[in-house]
Parts: sequence; structure tokens; C-alpha cells
Amino acid sequence: MPQIVYIDPVGPEGACPLIKDELDKIKRRETRVEFTHLKRGPQHLEYRYYESLIIPDLLHTIKDIEEKGNDAAVIGCFYDPGLSAAREITRNMVVTAPAEASFHLASKYGSKFSIIIGREKWIARITENLINYGFEDKLASFKTLEMGVLDFHTDPKHTEEKLKEKALEAVKEDKAEVIILGCTMQFGFYKQLQEHINVPVIDPIIAAFKYAEFLVELRNSFGWITSKKYTFEMPPDEEIDKWKIREIY
Amino acid sequence: MPQIVYIDPVGPEGACPLIKDELDKIKRRETRVEFTHLKRGPQHLEYRYYESLIIPDLLHTIKDIEEKGNDAAVIGCFYDPGLSAAREITRNMVVTAPAEASFHLASKYGSKFSIIIGREKWIARITENLINYGFEDKLASFKTLEMGVLDFHTDPKHTEEKLKEKALEAVKEDKAEVIILGCTMQFGFYKQLQEHINVPVIDPIIAAFKYAEFLVELRNSFGWITSKKYTFEMPPDEEIDKWKIREIY
Amino acid sequence: MPQIVYIDPVGPEGACPLIKDELDKIKRRETRVEFTHLKRGPQHLEYRYYESLIIPDLLHTIKDIEEKGNDAAVIGCFYDPGLSAAREITRNMVVTAPAEASFHLASKYGSKFSIIIGREKWIARITENLINYGFEDKLASFKTLEMGVLDFHTDPKHTEEKLKEKALEAVKEDKAEVIILGCTMQFGFYKQLQEHINVPVIDPIIAAFKYAEFLVELRNSFGWITSKKYTFEMPPDEEIDKWKIREIY
Amino acid sequence: MPQIVYIDPVGPEGACPLIKDELDKIKRRETRVEFTHLKRGPQHLEYRYYESLIIPDLLHTIKDIEEKGNDAAVIGCFYDPGLSAAREITRNMVVTAPAEASFHLASKYGSKFSIIIGREKWIARITENLINYGFEDKLASFKTLEMGVLDFHTDPKHTEEKLKEKALEAVKEDKAEVIILGCTMQFGFYKQLQEHINVPVIDPIIAAFKYAEFLVELRNSFGWITSKKYTFEMPPDEEIDKWKIREIY
Amino acid sequence: MPQIVYIDPVGPEGACPLIKDELDKIKRRETRVEFTHLKRGPQHLEYRYYESLIIPDLLHTIKDIEEKGNDAAVIGCFYDPGLSAAREITRNMVVTAPAEASFHLASKYGSKFSIIIGREKWIARITENLINYGFEDKLASFKTLEMGVLDFHTDPKHTEEKLKEKALEAVKEDKAEVIILGCTMQFGFYKQLQEHINVPVIDPIIAAFKYAEFLVELRNSFGWITSKKYTFEMPPDEEIDKWKIREIY
Amino acid sequence: MPQIVYIDPVGPEGACPLIKDELDKIKRRETRVEFTHLKRGPQHLEYRYYESLIIPDLLHTIKDIEEKGNDAAVIGCFYDPGLSAAREITRNMVVTAPAEASFHLASKYGSKFSIIIGREKWIARITENLINYGFEDKLASFKTLEMGVLDFHTDPKHTEEKLKEKALEAVKEDKAEVIILGCTMQFGFYKQLQEHINVPVIDPIIAAFKYAEFLVELRNSFGWITSKKYTFEMPPDEEIDKWKIREIY
Repeated sequence: MPQIVYIDPVGPEGACPLIKDELDKIKRRETRVEFTHLKRGPQHLEYRYYESLIIPDLLHTIKDIEEKGNDAAVIGCFYDPGLSAAREITRNMVVTAPAEASFHLASKYGSKFSIIIGREKWIARITENLINYGFEDKLASFKTLEMGVLDFHTDPKHTEEKLKEKALEAVKEDKAEVIILGCTMQFGFYKQLQEHINVPVIDPIIAAFKYAEFLVELRNSFGWITSKKYTFEMPPDEEIDKWKIREIY
Repeated sequence: MPQIVYIDPVGPEGACPLIKDELDKIKRRETRVEFTHLKRGPQHLEYRYYESLIIPDLLHTIKDIEEKGNDAAVIGCFYDPGLSAAREITRNMVVTAPAEASFHLASKYGSKFSIIIGREKWIARITENLINYGFEDKLASFKTLEMGVLDFHTDPKHTEEKLKEKALEAVKEDKAEVIILGCTMQFGFYKQLQEHINVPVIDPIIAAFKYAEFLVELRNSFGWITSKKYTFEMPPDEEIDKWKIREIY
Repeated sequence: MPQIVYIDPVGPEGACPLIKDELDKIKRRETRVEFTHLKRGPQHLEYRYYESLIIPDLLHTIKDIEEKGNDAAVIGCFYDPGLSAAREITRNMVVTAPAEASFHLASKYGSKFSIIIGREKWIARITENLINYGFEDKLASFKTLEMGVLDFHTDPKHTEEKLKEKALEAVKEDKAEVIILGCTMQFGFYKQLQEHINVPVIDPIIAAFKYAEFLVELRNSFGWITSKKYTFEMPPDEEIDKWKIREIY
Repeated sequence: MPQIVYIDPVGPEGACPLIKDELDKIKRRETRVEFTHLKRGPQHLEYRYYESLIIPDLLHTIKDIEEKGNDAAVIGCFYDPGLSAAREITRNMVVTAPAEASFHLASKYGSKFSIIIGREKWIARITENLINYGFEDKLASFKTLEMGVLDFHTDPKHTEEKLKEKALEAVKEDKAEVIILGCTMQFGFYKQLQEHINVPVIDPIIAAFKYAEFLVELRNSFGWITSKKYTFEMPPDEEIDKWKIREIY
Repeated sequence: MPQIVYIDPVGPEGACPLIKDELDKIKRRETRVEFTHLKRGPQHLEYRYYESLIIPDLLHTIKDIEEKGNDAAVIGCFYDPGLSAAREITRNMVVTAPAEASFHLASKYGSKFSIIIGREKWIARITENLINYGFEDKLASFKTLEMGVLDFHTDPKHTEEKLKEKALEAVKEDKAEVIILGCTMQFGFYKQLQEHINVPVIDPIIAAFKYAEFLVELRNSFGWITSKKYTFEMPPDEEIDKWKIREIY
Repeated sequence: MPQIVYIDPVGPEGACPLIKDELDKIKRRETRVEFTHLKRGPQHLEYRYYESLIIPDLLHTIKDIEEKGNDAAVIGCFYDPGLSAAREITRNMVVTAPAEASFHLASKYGSKFSIIIGREKWIARITENLINYGFEDKLASFKTLEMGVLDFHTDPKHTEEKLKEKALEAVKEDKAEVIILGCTMQFGFYKQLQEHINVPVIDPIIAAFKYAEFLVELRNSFGWITSKKYTFEMPPDEEIDKWKIREIY
């Protein structure tokens, strides 16, 4: 019975507890889902500053999740904050994140994808991940809604209209074959959009969560976990103890 | 109850019916697996010529598999023969293949992977796929066993020794963090190898098969299928009928 | 006296026997040209499925052409179907194809070229070749006529107008310095177009055919043929005989 | 009178107060240098976990440095931790870091550089920066000393010998034309090494510090500062206040 | 007291002696500036032909400048003519050039820059340098003023208007975060433009000159000069003497 | 009757008049070959300085060759000095050069080629052309003979032995499928080498000369010449006259 924890990496109340309901709908029957968020922090991570601030708490949350015996943690922000560090400090728990999962899936469904984002500010940050994960050649375009993270659900009808308009442009003009919703807070829109434009629309929460289930299955069956050689070699416990790292942060 | 057909794309008896047993061991409980091979053809596909020859039969096999109501077809050769054409002609059935699946998985487990192949001849063909799928920057090295496809199981002990030697070189000298077995006929070796070198070793049959299950689940739950816009637009039935394509091949 | 066979890789009557007349006009005096097509098959290759189907017949046609003592075979489709396999199975006969020849020539005449194609569907397939041959950085743009392969000669006046419009856009907006006609069925148009827009316009049939003559000359004078080391190593005759490959296909 | 603060981003006592003396020797006469470190934290940042932990404190230190009227902050670790976030939150203060500065300088002195690092673990992290800054094509090789950050000064004679051996290999075998010392804790070695191998050896502390002086001069004379458009747009003060960001971290 | 010579690499009177006044305004107090030009030659270098013609005279001018004991030479044309050759033949004098200096600086101020040029003809030449220096991924766009080099100062008001229009387009449409003026003859405009569009605007003369001062300081303090290993190995004096190179050119 | 002039771009007597005999042997019957060299200049071009010096004389030689009614000029140095400028100033005469011609041909004969050069110093210069022409991904390796340009023919037996050794290494270790001789002064060796290692060995003089014949044929038959749009737009005669360019150089 795989146990997966979805972390909304903002505080102090999480951006959207509704996400828990979404997860309950999409999980495999045998999976147990938990939803958590950070105790403190900004309410969105559009800025690198905000993102940097929450990473230590996020990493310790992930460490706790592993120590409590869970099978996977899902980092709930499309910037994939802390993903590499999380894979470094976990012993054999699965950690997934929305952008990585979405890029992998989208590139299986078509030659080129477009990412619908809120603001142009996000482009450089997401591009860093695109390049780092090796998918820059699959990008058709970024399409910008001119909305902040917290605006997507204030007028869902309007958001839906804008999404349809931008997704259509991406397909028609930029030759996108797949659409990725470039923010976890765009949850709840993929289905109508997909029906409207008739190409796959990847919801990044779903992508990250289902990949978590999948990777847990692979780990349990085949022993496949993050390689601990080189990149993700773990920091030694002696150092962490000697410097009292867990206490001082 | 997902039904998945694994196709050993050689003839006239398949390269290895034992693969069926492997699949039975690794499938999810609810999955139904079928194993098939081509009625005619060479016994391995190391040459582009052999690969080209079997693709039409393979595509028609896949078309039949979809028409019989199956959920996925797995193409059982690490060159991924006919993968793009198969995605073009299938309506909404999942099609997966070993190299694509292995590259995706390996890049989730580490920064760089090495691929263990039989002969240097294979490098150009596999590199084409690496580039096409976008993973060329993840390659640490190719390591060559100096064996043909049909040699891997003649003296399994010897193959295992060579695999260990080459995998270790890949990790030590080329800084690979993950190993991919670069031929479906290297089945049966990943586990001991993984224990020996202590980094993930991806068996390409398992990768392709488990991805098939995963993508069927995603399709059934979220409607995600190969985009039919541009690259994978289907050939029109009228042309196929008018030119009697199905009859003449 | 070089003997070159142009293969129209469609069936059952070839797409356009008129091409023979074109070739007679452009060949060197001493060259002998033959025109052939496949005995069966679709009438165009816009889909990967069609392309995959004809490759075995095409390869056997090429094999026969070599065995009859010819010096070169030209594959008459801008997707360059089967080119690598053909170079693998030929002993020392020259094999050329339109896209490869056109990219090489165009990059000698200017910094950037645009390719005028029929439909957006073709972009992914041609891009695969662009990347494989190493010319992706030379591409200014694809320009689409919104026509199928079989439409180019139904109203040649209209086609010519569209070609002029798109070529001009390519030069003005996309900064193309050379134009490539991206389909062998666009034969007959390059000259007027070239005079109209005043930059070189590469006809892919001419490019492939003249390269064939050129490479035959180089082979005869300097012994330069496809390297049989690694990529294009030939499949062994013993396997082909043992598996009765030539009989069963 | 430019005022520059060098931050040793470890705690609780800094890795090496001796660096202050180095800076006093290399600064322009009119520059005023301050040396600071973090109040808490690990003693080196070889792991992404450690690096992630210190970034919030580092950013707030930088913010304070700007608010106190300084002209530049230098981040004293070759991973360039927090550099982008620091440029996002500073109004017009200069922020520099060792890897970025070293790559820029090295590529002015030769076609290819090698980076001498402590352990292979560092390669993936530094490669991320190489790619992000656009210098991956300038890399000749990484050379590994098999030492941790804290080992470089335990037996300086031995370190110097190893540095000479590895630098020579880089020049002879990997065709490096310039050497970069890939850790700020390799300070004190560049001069002898440079004389020994007779190619430029970049000390990353010097590179970062001198770039800071240079960029302050450019800012004061020409108004050139980090662009606040898109990538480095600042987080709004209202949000920071409303969410009490400065208080809770 | 650093002595720097700015070379206007055209003849017979230089394109613009006013540049001397600009340099006097921007130099450090202790720097001594000299301005020179070639004795013969075209009045601009928009064509490769013109550029090729002046390089020998330019190189000999640079050689003389070094022999007279100067510390740096600045090549005053955005094509950076002869830069590599100049670094090859100078013993330890600094040589800088506008494009290289501008690309380095611009990439420190933002993720993407646009270059404002006079005519589309220049794109291929500047792109060669972009790629050669490793900054092609930082380019947002070229923006063309449709003016020749000698037109920029005939109606400065008009030039300023066009610059504002094009720079604004670059920022709005192409997402440039920094603007580079792509010709030394665009001197005198950066300040107003920068105030108008509110992103850094790099004047290439300033960039090259200030880099020269900076690199002289680094050379004098740390011994960093162009590596004489491989790429910039000097031609041997014996050959130059034996072949009377200095006499015959 | 095509008239082609081969230019040995050194002085005052050319590096090797024997090349004329080679050309007479390899030309088509109807071609008329002339051999020329520069009136002054260094005896080899290994340094950028030497290369820069001879380009103006070379360009004027080429201009004269066109004005005298010739059909093509071949630049006889593997650095391809002045190739772009030569294409800019010629009206419709063909200009070819050894590296460009060799890269194009080699990539038709195999997936990867190695270039055998004299000294490591050459790597950066040749790499610039590899990248500029778009063939960097086809390079297997550079192999260095540790000889200068003028040494190749002092002891031909020894040169041949070294060539065989290095070419074999390239094929065995670096997986080269084709060998390019990376200096025109390596003429006379390709045939024995080719027979010895059994992969195509490209002599760069032959490649450049035969391409010249080929491109003249294409020009005469199809009107294909260097595009005069953008990159190779000619400098205006009025400027050249007004500035007395032809007189002063």
C-alpha cells in the first residue's frame, strides 16, 4: 500500500487544500495520499527569493516524510524547488516534481509542447529546468496569461477562456502538439481545455503524482532508486551530527 | 483489466519465448500479457536492412492488436523500430519501446547513464534515437561487449562477467550514475548486475513494459494519448482503402 | 559511361514519369539515366506509415540495381526514405537522396535556407533529417503551401503563385538566403521562382541526381565510397542466405 | 570609495578568515573590504543540502549589506549559491560569485579551460552553472584532486603537488589553455601553479572580487546594473510585508 | 599609469575623432588614452572584404603599440576584426574588442540581450562571433535600424528615435533584458536610450575600453595574460625575420 | 570548357608547384587548370597572423581571376582563408576551399570523421570552421602528427608511417569512419593510406578541386551561385572607387 505525501511548499496554510480532493480522485485504489504544507512562508513562489526561502523547510519536511516510512513525496510547485537536494538527502524514497514529470510525459505524446505560464518573469526560471532536464528542443513556446499564481481561481471562467485562447495560439501558430499547464495552481482546468483544443493537456499535479506512484512501483519491484553515485551522494551523517545541522535549522 | 501485447519483432519463431515468463513476473496483477512475434523475418535486427524489412509486418501486427481491443503494444527491440509510424497509425492505443522508455527512466535516477551494447556497429543507430528523443546530453558512454544479439545467452556466466566489467568501467571512468542494458536480449541480467555495482541498472524490456502499463492507466484516467496534431496525424482511411494498402502488403 | 537509376519510390505506376524527361535534360552527356518505380505501394509518402511500407521494396530495388552493374541509385522522395539502409546494403554503388543533397548544396550558397513544404505534418519528419545530417542551424524556416504531394501539378499556375509568395516571405521575414523546394513533386518550378526572387532555388531532384553523378566520378577516380566501418557495415551474406531473407520478402 | 563585502557563506565561524588578508592585498587602493560569514551553518557546501540550507541566511545577509550602503557583495563559494536570487532582491548593488567570474575571465585568456575540483561529486553541480552561464563549450575537462573542501590547507605542500600534477595533465592531455581553481578554499595556490605550468591560473576569489570592483565602477559611471525586467524583477515589498517574510525567516 | 590606445580601424582619417573625447570622459583617472586610426583604408567595415583588407595594417599597428610600451589596445569595430590574430602576436599586452566585451557584460546584467544593428547584412558576421565566444543562447534578437555605419550621426535625433523604437520592441516582443548597441558608431546614444527603456544599454566602445583597463589591472596584479599554449602560440621570430614579413607588408 | 585556377596562398614561390601535376591528373578531361601563388608572403599559414596577412592579396588575386573570365578559384589552404570574403566579392565565379569541401564529402561517406593535423596549435582554428560550417557533431577526433606544414614532404616515408599510425588510432579508438587529411601539404598520401586502413581518406586538395568543377557545372546548368542576399551582398563599386580601394592595397 503505497503512501504518498503531496507537499504544497507554501505557508502558513498552503495555497489550496482543495488539491487533496483532486489527488483522492486520481490516485490508484491502493495508494494512500496525504496532503501537507509548510508551517511558514510566502503564499506563492514566483520569485527566486521566495523559492530559496522555503527550500530548507521543504527539505526537512521531505526528510521527515521519509523517516515516517512513506514511499514518495511530491513537491507541489512547477519550479520543482529543491528537487535535486531532495534526491540527495533521501535514502530510497521517491521524490517527484511537476515540471520534470510534465516534460517527460509531454514528450511522449508529441514532438513539441507549449507551456502556459502566468507571467513572463517565470520564463528564465522554467527554462533553467527545461535545459537541465534536457527538454529545451521540445519547447514550441511559452504562452503567458498575464496572471499571478493567486489569480487563476479568482474568476475561473475568465481563466478558462484565456487558457483556451492561448492554447489555441500555441497549437496554430507555434505548432505545439501538446500543452503543459505551467503552474500547479492551474489545477482543475486541463479536462475542458483538452476537449476544447483536442490535443493532450498535461496537468502538472497529476503528472507528478502519477509518476510518484509509478516510481514507487518500480522501486518496490526492481530496486530502482536514485543513484547514490556522484550527483546524489548523500551528505554524511557524521557531519550533520557534528555540525548539529538538524538542530540549528 | 489492461491488455498488453509484447511483440518480439523477429521471425519466424521469435528470438526468445522466455520473455513471456519474465513479463508474467513483472506485470501488475490486473494486467493481461500476451507475447507475439512476426511470422517471418531475420532473427535479430542489428542491421538497418533487417530492421527496415520487419517494420511493415510489425506495423500491421500493431494495427491488428489495436483492432482486437488491446490497450498497449510493446515493441521488443532496443532500436525502437517503427515507433513513430506505430504512433501515427494507432487511434488511441499506447505503443512503447525499450530505448525511449529506458532513457526516460534512467534520466530520473541520475545525471548520466551509460549504455551497454553488443557491437560498435550499433552506436550510430542508437545515437540517432538518443538525439531524436533529446537525451544525448545524458549519455556518459557506450560500452561494447563485442557480442552479437544472439550471443548473450549462449554462455550466461561469461556474459554476466563481461557486463560487470563494462558496467564498472562506465561508473568509474565515464562517471555513469545509471546503467542501461542496450538490447532486449540482455534480459535476465539486470538484478545481479545492479547488486554488484550498486547503481540502478535498467532492463529495457521492463522499462518498456511498465511504461506501457503506466500510459494505459493515464490514458484511461485522463484521456492522454498521442497527439494527433501534426507529427502523428493519421493517414486517411480513404487513401488506404483506395490504394488497397492493407491488401497489397 | 555512368549509369544512374532514379527510383520513384511509389507504386504501382510511379508518381510522375515526366521526371524522366527532366533527368534527360540535366544529365551530363555521357551519363545514362533510367527511371523506375515500385510495383506496388501508396502514391505518396507523406505519412510515416506509407514510407515504412515501401522501404523493403525500395531496398530490394536498390540491391537489384547494384547487381545489374549500375553506378548509382537516386531515391526520389524528400524524406530520403531508406537512405541509411541503402548505404548499408550496397557494396560500392553510390546512393543519393533529395534532402541530403539539397541541404549540402544550399549551405554552400548561403548562411540560411528555408524549405517550402506542402503541409505542417511534414515538419517533424524533415527536421529529423536536418538534425541527423547536421544542418539544423542552417534552417531559416519552413514555409507551408497547404497542399498535398499530389496537388502541386493540378494547377501549376496557382502552385507557382503560392511558391513565389512563400519564398518571398522566407527571404524578407525569415532572412533565408537560399530556398529549397521540399518535395520532389515540386519539380518544374525552380527556374521561374529563382528568377523571380533572385536567390538560388534548389530543386531536390536535380540536387540528388547531380550529386549522384559527382559521387560516381569521385568513386571511379579516387576510390571514395561509403565507409564500411561501423555505421554502414554490411549484413553478412551467410545470415541473409540462412534466413532466406531475399526469398521471404 | 567602493565598499565591498566578501561573504564566506558558511558558519558559525567562516571557513577561513585568512581570506580577508588575501583581499586586502588584491583590492584597489580606494576600495574598502569587509569580510563576513554566516552565524550558523555547515562548514562547507559540497552537498546541495548544505547549499540549500544556507541560502536564506545568505540572501538576508546580502540584503543587509545593500541596506547598509555597500556597493557590492561577493558570494564566497564556487557553486555560486543564491546568485540569481541575490540579483533579484538587490536594488542596484553589485553581486558577484566565483564560478561566473572565473568562467568569464578564463574564456578571455584562452579557448579552453579545465577546472580543478576536489571530488567527482561536484561535477554535476558545477556543470549546471557552466551550462546556465553559457560556457560548456569552453570546458576542456574537470580534474579531481580527491580531496574535500576542508582538506586543501591541511598539508599545503601536498595540495600544491597534486595541483601541479593535475594542471599539467589538463594542459597536456585535455588541451586546456587556462586553469580554474574550482573551489574558493584553493586560495593561496594560484601563483606558484601559474609559474609552474606557464598558463593563466584563475583564483576564483580574486576573479569574483575584482569583478565586483569593476562592476561597481561601471555602475557608478554608466548606470549599468542588473536588469529588473523579467528574470530579475524584484519581489514586491507589499507581499514581503504582508506575509512578514523578513520576520519569519 | 596604464596606457591604452584606441584604434579606429579605418582610414585615412578615422571614422570619428570625437571618440577620443568620449574616452577621456570614461577612463579612470590614472589611465592615459591615445586615439589612432589607420593610414589608409575604407571608411567603414560593413563588408568582409573591407574588414579583411585592414587587418594586416591593424595587426602591425597593434604590434607597434605593444613595442612602444603600451598596456592595451582596443580594436574599435563591433566585428572585432583581427582580435584572435592580435592576441596571437602580442607578448603580454591586453587587446580587447567591442563585441566580445559587450557580450560578456550584457550576460552579467540579464538572461537575454538584443543587438541593435544597422543592416541585415551584418547578422551573419556578428553571429559568427556570438557562436565563437559562446553567447548564442543569450541572444534575444537582432533589431535592424536600416542604416549604414556612416548614417548614425547624420541626423542624431532620427537615430535616437529609431533606437528607442527598436529597443522597445526588443524588450516587449523578444523579451530582451539588456540592449547592446551593435556598432561603435552608435556611440553617444546609450544614456538617453537607457533612461528611456529602463534596462541596461551597453555602449560597445565603453565596454571594450573599460575591459581593457580592467584586464591591464589584472595582468599587472596577478600575471594573467592570454595563454600562449595552443590557440595563441606566437609565430616564431626566426620565421618572421627569414621571410622578411615585417618588411614586405 | 571550365577554367579553374588553384591558388597556393603563400609566397613568394608557392609552397609546392608539384600540386599542378596532381591537379592535371584528377581534373575532368574538358577542364583547364591553372596554378598560381602569391607574389609575397610567408611560406605557410599555421599562424593566424600569417593567414591574416595574405588574405588581401588572395582576395585581389581571386578578383583578378574572375575578371579574366575564369569559372572557379580554389583556395589552397585547409584553414580556408578568406573564403567568405571571396564569396562576397565575386560576382558569379565559384570559390571553393579544402576544409569546407572535405567536411561535406566526408559526412556523405560515414557518420564520424577524424582530421589528421600537424600540430595542436591548429585545433582551435579548424574547430572554428567546423562549427561555422555546421559539422562539429561529425568530428570523431583530431589526430596530431607533431609536424609543421613544411615537414610533411621532407621524409615522405616517415610521414606515411605516422599517418598510418594516427589514422588507425582514429578508426580503432575514436570510431572514425572516414579520415580527412587536415593540410593541403599532405597531398600525395591519401591513396596508400586508404588502402592501408580501408576507410575513405579525403585529400583536401582533391575535394576542393572536384567541388569546384561540380559547382561550375551546376552554375552553368541551373544558375546556382552564391546568394547575394544578406551574408554575401557585394560591397558597392561606388565605395570601392571613391575610396580608391583597389589602388591603395
